[in-house]
Amino acid sequence: MTTETTPAAITRWDGWGDPTLARDLPLAVRALLRTVIGRVRRPKPAAALSDVVLDPSVLSVEDHTSLAAIVGEDAIHTDAESRIRHSGGRSTPDLLRLRETRQDAPDAVVAPSGHDEVLAVLGYASAHDIAIVPFGGGTSVVGALSPERADHRAVIALDLRRLSGLLHFDEVSAEARFLAGTTGPEAERLLSAHGFELGHYPQSFLYATLGGFASARSAGQNSAGNGRFDTMVTALRIATPTGEVVLGGAPGSAAGPDLMRLFLGAEGILGVITELSVRVHRLPETHRYEAWTFPDFATGTAALRRVAQLGTGPTVIRLSDEAETGIGLAQHGRVGKALAKGCSAVTVFEGDAALTAERQATTARVLTDVGGRSTGPVPAEEWADGRFGAPYLRDALLDYGAFCETLETATVWAKIEPLKAAVTDAIRSGFTAQDSKSLVLCHISHVYPTGAALYFTIIGNLRADAVEEWNLIKTRVNDAILAHGGTISHHHGVGRDHAPWLAREIGEGGIRLLRAVKAELDPSGIMNPGAVLPVTAARQKS
Amino acid sequence: MTTETTPAAITRWDGWGDPTLARDLPLAVRALLRTVIGRVRRPKPAAALSDVVLDPSVLSVEDHTSLAAIVGEDAIHTDAESRIRHSGGRSTPDLLRLRETRQDAPDAVVAPSGHDEVLAVLGYASAHDIAIVPFGGGTSVVGALSPERADHRAVIALDLRRLSGLLHFDEVSAEARFLAGTTGPEAERLLSAHGFELGHYPQSFLYATLGGFASARSAGQNSAGNGRFDTMVTALRIATPTGEVVLGGAPGSAAGPDLMRLFLGAEGILGVITELSVRVHRLPETHRYEAWTFPDFATGTAALRRVAQLGTGPTVIRLSDEAETGIGLAQHGRVGKALAKGCSAVTVFEGDAALTAERQATTARVLTDVGGRSTGPVPAEEWADGRFGAPYLRDALLDYGAFCETLETATVWAKIEPLKAAVTDAIRSGFTAQDSKSLVLCHISHVYPTGAALYFTIIGNLRADAVEEWNLIKTRVNDAILAHGGTISHHHGVGRDHAPWLAREIGEGGIRLLRAVKAELDPSGIMNPGAVLPVTAARQKS
Repeated sequence: MTTETTPAAITRWDGWGDPTLARDLPLAVRALLRTVIGRVRRPKPAAALSDVVLDPSVLSVEDHTSLAAIVGEDAIHTDAESRIRHSGGRSTPDLLRLRETRQDAPDAVVAPSGHDEVLAVLGYASAHDIAIVPFGGGTSVVGALSPERADHRAVIALDLRRLSGLLHFDEVSAEARFLAGTTGPEAERLLSAHGFELGHYPQSFLYATLGGFASARSAGQNSAGNGRFDTMVTALRIATPTGEVVLGGAPGSAAGPDLMRLFLGAEGILGVITELSVRVHRLPETHRYEAWTFPDFATGTAALRRVAQLGTGPTVIRLSDEAETGIGLAQHGRVGKALAKGCSAVTVFEGDAALTAERQATTARVLTDVGGRSTGPVPAEEWADGRFGAPYLRDALLDYGAFCETLETATVWAKIEPLKAAVTDAIRSGFTAQDSKSLVLCHISHVYPTGAALYFTIIGNLRADAVEEWNLIKTRVNDAILAHGGTISHHHGVGRDHAPWLAREIGEGGIRLLRAVKAELDPSGIMNPGAVLPVTAARQKS
Repeated sequence: MTTETTPAAITRWDGWGDPTLARDLPLAVRALLRTVIGRVRRPKPAAALSDVVLDPSVLSVEDHTSLAAIVGEDAIHTDAESRIRHSGGRSTPDLLRLRETRQDAPDAVVAPSGHDEVLAVLGYASAHDIAIVPFGGGTSVVGALSPERADHRAVIALDLRRLSGLLHFDEVSAEARFLAGTTGPEAERLLSAHGFELGHYPQSFLYATLGGFASARSAGQNSAGNGRFDTMVTALRIATPTGEVVLGGAPGSAAGPDLMRLFLGAEGILGVITELSVRVHRLPETHRYEAWTFPDFATGTAALRRVAQLGTGPTVIRLSDEAETGIGLAQHGRVGKALAKGCSAVTVFEGDAALTAERQATTARVLTDVGGRSTGPVPAEEWADGRFGAPYLRDALLDYGAFCETLETATVWAKIEPLKAAVTDAIRSGFTAQDSKSLVLCHISHVYPTGAALYFTIIGNLRADAVEEWNLIKTRVNDAILAHGGTISHHHGVGRDHAPWLAREIGEGGIRLLRAVKAELDPSGIMNPGAVLPVTAARQKS
């Protein structure tokens, strides 16, 4: 694939990010691992890219010619490397699968350069029974990018990263319009030239695209101050197999239902977001960091709740549970009796200098009132410095033979503690049932006036087929989440991994609505089949 | 209608609110009127309730018996008064129509007492070709309550005010679940017993229901602090002709698109919201009022924009243009040279005492920096005291023979001034074309980081058929709004009055989506036909 038709992307084909940034597992973590999950068996080395075997592409010469007439010959890729690099996302099951020599992959990667090309490709695919998997940064961790063809003749990964750029910047309204394949860093680079930022920093920030953030209802680490991505979107242009849809504009409207919301979270099953407008804000004058410690998770939770309900204005606020607090300190080599106890929290305040100082002072007053103690800026700065590094640690753990994955949910404040207990128990008992040990860490990652998101990191010792074992555990977890009033996902999305649980959350009524909208826009059912909505019996791959 | 089956409602059958609060036009306003719109002809006295003639109800004995089996005999009303009281909303055209002796009215008023009864009524109506107009407080100003039967056999007004009460209160999560027919004041009464409030105060507050707020995407005067009503809703239960839909729960979710949004703003065309959960907050410890004056509207707009973009936290912030500032002062009898110039603004801060003081100080700093001058608390307190009184003034103007109506829109900050100019020009030229004079007042009523809402009050001198003349003017206005990047409604809704313009705002793509969802939930097309979506040729009343 030429650089011209495929902008900067994850460069490690079978892991996270930039291979030059990969790091070995720190000695302290290895020692800890042996203590908590026991001895692990080093896995066999992963397959080399050149050893991977794919089924041949079933795309016909006519398909190739017709698609080339739309996007150009250079924008169609059927080589093994391109197909493998578009064969899924970056969940732990995705990474474990990539260690095998036999892989499923799309029949081709097609990289259109603009809205009209996307529209034409979808039209061709719909008329010729080819499934389309829209592909942005490739960072899905819920199977939203699996090359599922369902009952269709072929499947194409539609790489959208050539749709990159700032289309319009409105300084007065603090609004910017982008092509949807613009990555997080590229959007920030373009905005910073105007003195503005978007300020959306999920773990996937370095690679994911704005269209991906919108399609997956992403939430970034600065959500307390800047909001979820779906609250930042002010307008959308969408290409569907049956034409375009253009929505949004006014900052508040009662012109019927907000139909943009159908596409925020649709994960490509209705069409492809090709352009979007987003709320932006001036580059912060100031960044203020302050970490906190609480005697226990319940006290910390009550403190975060009070901050969210009063609206004291932190940009970031997070609370680690006792286990994560201990491990976090271990990683930094500062295991001290006094510090390792309790729960640590991070606050960050960004923006106008005067306002930021006031918000920090008010937030500090509230956190102190509820039982917190400030531990100064350093631990919060350390968190900020390391916040995009966790996926590299996962790669190192997998190399070492340990299983590592994350999952997340959200619920109302009154149910946070029972939901956390139920999910933790489901994970622990799931590993125990397979005679394995596990370590479960948790933090509150996002807060709202009525509730919060819980983010779990799991490190375990899986014995045989790790993916299969994990799927059994994940089933227990998802059942526990729905039984305790949680959502099946707060910001990772549904993908194919959570699709079987969606009906329990949104009911048959909700599923009917999604199917009706999909039937209208995508009557052939080619758009990302199996994501969000399970493939129905009639549509299953025979 | 017994009080048991119909709770407190607007008591004046042909005007606003409580007839004992009706007031004559102040002398100062009469003098002013003569100056700005010239001499007006006193209209003929309105028809008495007993003089109104309706077509007989076409509901059959079988219908009556079947519906009585669902809701009880006492909850079906076919008397003339009940039918007239459910024959529309409270727009000025509605009020002018109510002055005539010949009226359109629903064939019956049916008042179910709970979700299951609503579901059964909709099922019966769908099977027996009866249109349903859901009816809450009856305060629509966009024709959402007109007894439109389209091509159906009959039409029923479904009065939902018996679905009243607090179902669940969760103090920790600051969330409350209500039956959707609960009125604004009743919801506040129930919440205040727990020390909480909802804090949603649109002009319709005293009569409208929570289900109505949700269905119309209402925005209240405290929206700067408490948000639009659609942002307060956390869960919905909806009865549709084809079953129930239950959505929401988690404070943030990526479990597919937020399908609740389909019902927020659907104005009853998809089904009936029967229960809803809403975000609430502690009763404010403090209310702080401060009024401001700006040299001109542009400066005031820039100041409000800065407050919204920085997020300094007012609960209320509004800015009147020069004309509205002058009239507002005239009403209070304080026309002074110094004060009557420029534009006045109101700010209110509510909540925690310390936080409220900080927010007021920060907001004051910003408003001063941009060119504002504080005029102290009194004008803001006067605004707050009088804020539910405007509709009574309209009744007095109509009695006097002057036409008075309001309309509203929203757009991004960069387009506020051209949109305001275009709408003002459309109104003025519309009156001039009919050889009439008009007075156009405007204020910014709601602010967002990317834009704001413009609220217009129009007083004019219409000569012949006022409703017909106004429709011609409204057409010019709606065309101007869409041509200048405004939304056809910021919070009044679409109803039947704005339905012909909706396709220009949301495109054919948006209309296809709405029709697909409606076809799924309401295949017989009985739900509020003609509202939001214009009745198609095939469905038009023959």
